[in-house]
Amino acid sequence: MAVIVQKYGGTSVGSPERMRAVAERIVAAKEAGHKVIAVVSAMGDVTDDLVRLAAQINPEPPERELDMLLATGEQVSIALLAMAIHSLGHEAISFTGPQVGIVTDHGHTKAKILEVRADRVRDALAEGRVAIVAGFQGVTADGSITTLGRGGSDTTAVAVAAGIDADVCEIYTDVDGVYTADPRVVPDARKIGVISYEEMLELAASGAGVLNLRSVEFARNHGVVIHCRSSFTGAPGTIVEEADNSMEQAIISGVAHDTSEAKVTIRDVPDRPGAAATVFTTMAEANVNVDMIIQNVSEAGATDISFTTPKADLVRARRAADAVVAELGAREWQVDESIAKVSLVGAGMKTHPGVAAQMFRALSDAGVNIDLISTSTIRITCVVEARQVEAAVRALHHSFGLAEGDVSVESVPACGKGE
Amino acid sequence: MAVIVQKYGGTSVGSPERMRAVAERIVAAKEAGHKVIAVVSAMGDVTDDLVRLAAQINPEPPERELDMLLATGEQVSIALLAMAIHSLGHEAISFTGPQVGIVTDHGHTKAKILEVRADRVRDALAEGRVAIVAGFQGVTADGSITTLGRGGSDTTAVAVAAGIDADVCEIYTDVDGVYTADPRVVPDARKIGVISYEEMLELAASGAGVLNLRSVEFARNHGVVIHCRSSFTGAPGTIVEEADNSMEQAIISGVAHDTSEAKVTIRDVPDRPGAAATVFTTMAEANVNVDMIIQNVSEAGATDISFTTPKADLVRARRAADAVVAELGAREWQVDESIAKVSLVGAGMKTHPGVAAQMFRALSDAGVNIDLISTSTIRITCVVEARQVEAAVRALHHSFGLAEGDVSVESVPACGKGE
Repeated sequence: MAVIVQKYGGTSVGSPERMRAVAERIVAAKEAGHKVIAVVSAMGDVTDDLVRLAAQINPEPPERELDMLLATGEQVSIALLAMAIHSLGHEAISFTGPQVGIVTDHGHTKAKILEVRADRVRDALAEGRVAIVAGFQGVTADGSITTLGRGGSDTTAVAVAAGIDADVCEIYTDVDGVYTADPRVVPDARKIGVISYEEMLELAASGAGVLNLRSVEFARNHGVVIHCRSSFTGAPGTIVEEADNSMEQAIISGVAHDTSEAKVTIRDVPDRPGAAATVFTTMAEANVNVDMIIQNVSEAGATDISFTTPKADLVRARRAADAVVAELGAREWQVDESIAKVSLVGAGMKTHPGVAAQMFRALSDAGVNIDLISTSTIRITCVVEARQVEAAVRALHHSFGLAEGDVSVESVPACGKGE
Repeated sequence: MAVIVQKYGGTSVGSPERMRAVAERIVAAKEAGHKVIAVVSAMGDVTDDLVRLAAQINPEPPERELDMLLATGEQVSIALLAMAIHSLGHEAISFTGPQVGIVTDHGHTKAKILEVRADRVRDALAEGRVAIVAGFQGVTADGSITTLGRGGSDTTAVAVAAGIDADVCEIYTDVDGVYTADPRVVPDARKIGVISYEEMLELAASGAGVLNLRSVEFARNHGVVIHCRSSFTGAPGTIVEEADNSMEQAIISGVAHDTSEAKVTIRDVPDRPGAAATVFTTMAEANVNVDMIIQNVSEAGATDISFTTPKADLVRARRAADAVVAELGAREWQVDESIAKVSLVGAGMKTHPGVAAQMFRALSDAGVNIDLISTSTIRITCVVEARQVEAAVRALHHSFGLAEGDVSVESVPACGKGE
């Protein structure tokens, strides 16, 4: 008998029929002898609809009240799912984030989980019930309802799995696993069977939308095994777990891309100590998420500072950029919304220095210009024009032979362990 | 400076435009120097929509989960209203029933308020904010979300007004006060300026839908002055307060009618001690609200027991009636859904014994048959055929001269104080 957390996204519970299908899947796991905790998102487009409704009332709603509003989406889902399970003759009990004791900080609309007091979930399981938990939401120590930001239901699921020491956290979604590239862009993309937390983190951070970045971080930090799979088929999906060093690692796991960011450039920042600190402190205080940062070499006592940020943060970023330009005496700021990121991720690239060169050549051969570059030990990201991103993804997927599961790095031999 | 609770029903907050109008009314009261607590219902038909959604999933949903679902309706309203007030440049903070500390019993879907811990509301007022409270909902001592039943938002408003010792509880609705009869049925019905708790209770219990019965009871028990008025006009409505004995009371306050009940008859109940107790204990355990009860005189060792109950309770009532018939060895049960109640209410009728006679004559003259009769010291109710109820209401309103505010009881002199 295993303790299983099953997380169902908005598409999986998007209609009464789908809600029933989810209930049947949960009941099947329970009848197989497992203890099941279900974490659910809001149905379908409910969260977007609520955001639109709020915008009709107040274009910049107070974030505490936005959280109060959005938290209702998941509350509807948990109640309906509990009803669906009851109609199948099994006992289920639903809990909101506050009821479960998902305690967060005060960062409304993107709160961080501080603690999971899962006593009520444990009690429900001990009583033979299915516990149903609202994803995406929590409560501050002083009792305000918070939300965890988009994708927060994945984080809830992993946090609950960690809190009750579950054997696995199954994340059900509308795709059947993590692929070597987005199958909508690359038709011969391959499903990845097992992937390490580190690679999954880089893929998620680079735009692979299947799993939420924070949930993977949380899973790595707490040793929660994630099984990412489809809610529409019974097929196994992708397991995310600690890298098994006894196995040989693929050089490249996959290609991810992301069109959700924009580039902000502060032009002609006077080159003095603390200028960059001022820029990014101001952005942080304005609640602007900053991803890639590039500072050019200084010319004539001034420099350009560029960074990428989610388009969703641009209203705040523009306002903060005004403040930065005024404070630093910079020339101006510019925003480019027609950019995209394309990233190559693989734990094996640590020991294969030719990967970057091959990546740049493949992009060049495909006629794709590179604007910015950033790297980690297992990832290389290029910012390109948005209109070229699909060509870039296909070129990289082909160049590294990802469709064949037989990744080759041209010309450059793998580094030996002795080097 | 007064402390004012303002309650807005679902129609008043039924669209973003109306939500804004409510926000403007609240802000006007605040700018006039008052401390304002707003209690709101779910927008428009949201609660009905949620009930229908639940029925698609499970025709008999567990009541705890139904409460979990329905509570989201008011939570949406409070968040949006807070946003609307912010957009007018004022501070507002929303609270769910659990957050305010509306502690109830475990009677899911019709919970009773045990306690109001309004500390967070008091704090918000002290900070100069408008406090916005979700109507209709509360929380059990062990943390489950409950709802108070239809009309529960009025009860929330009165309970919060009592909890913070407000000067008045303004109940805004889509009509501009309490009338001598339903103006849709009787076009020349008159708005009542002031009415006592007792008369309002009888009118509300008899089907006058403007104010919720429990909220008036709660107001009477805690001395909360209610001002029932329209959210669409600034006109004064109807004040409900302690009867002022120095004023002469109208003989008749109004005529109420109610088509929401059905009549259940248990036929040929063996005439033995405890039979009636068995019937109504079984109904109470099945959560069936019983209104009027009539037991005919016994014939041949058996009797019929009839009662009226909300049609909404009929599913449960039928099941309980099966159990009753089996347990008592009664012949059968019957349900008549085509009945209506028509009631005459007035504190003055205590001292005017001719009222009942005039009522029965007026109904008879209008060709209306009377099925059951029940009375209190200030009310007489007749059950009639549903198709005749409007004729009955018009006949009574006319017979007692309610349109002229000059109520006459024919033939019978008023009882003197000495009698």
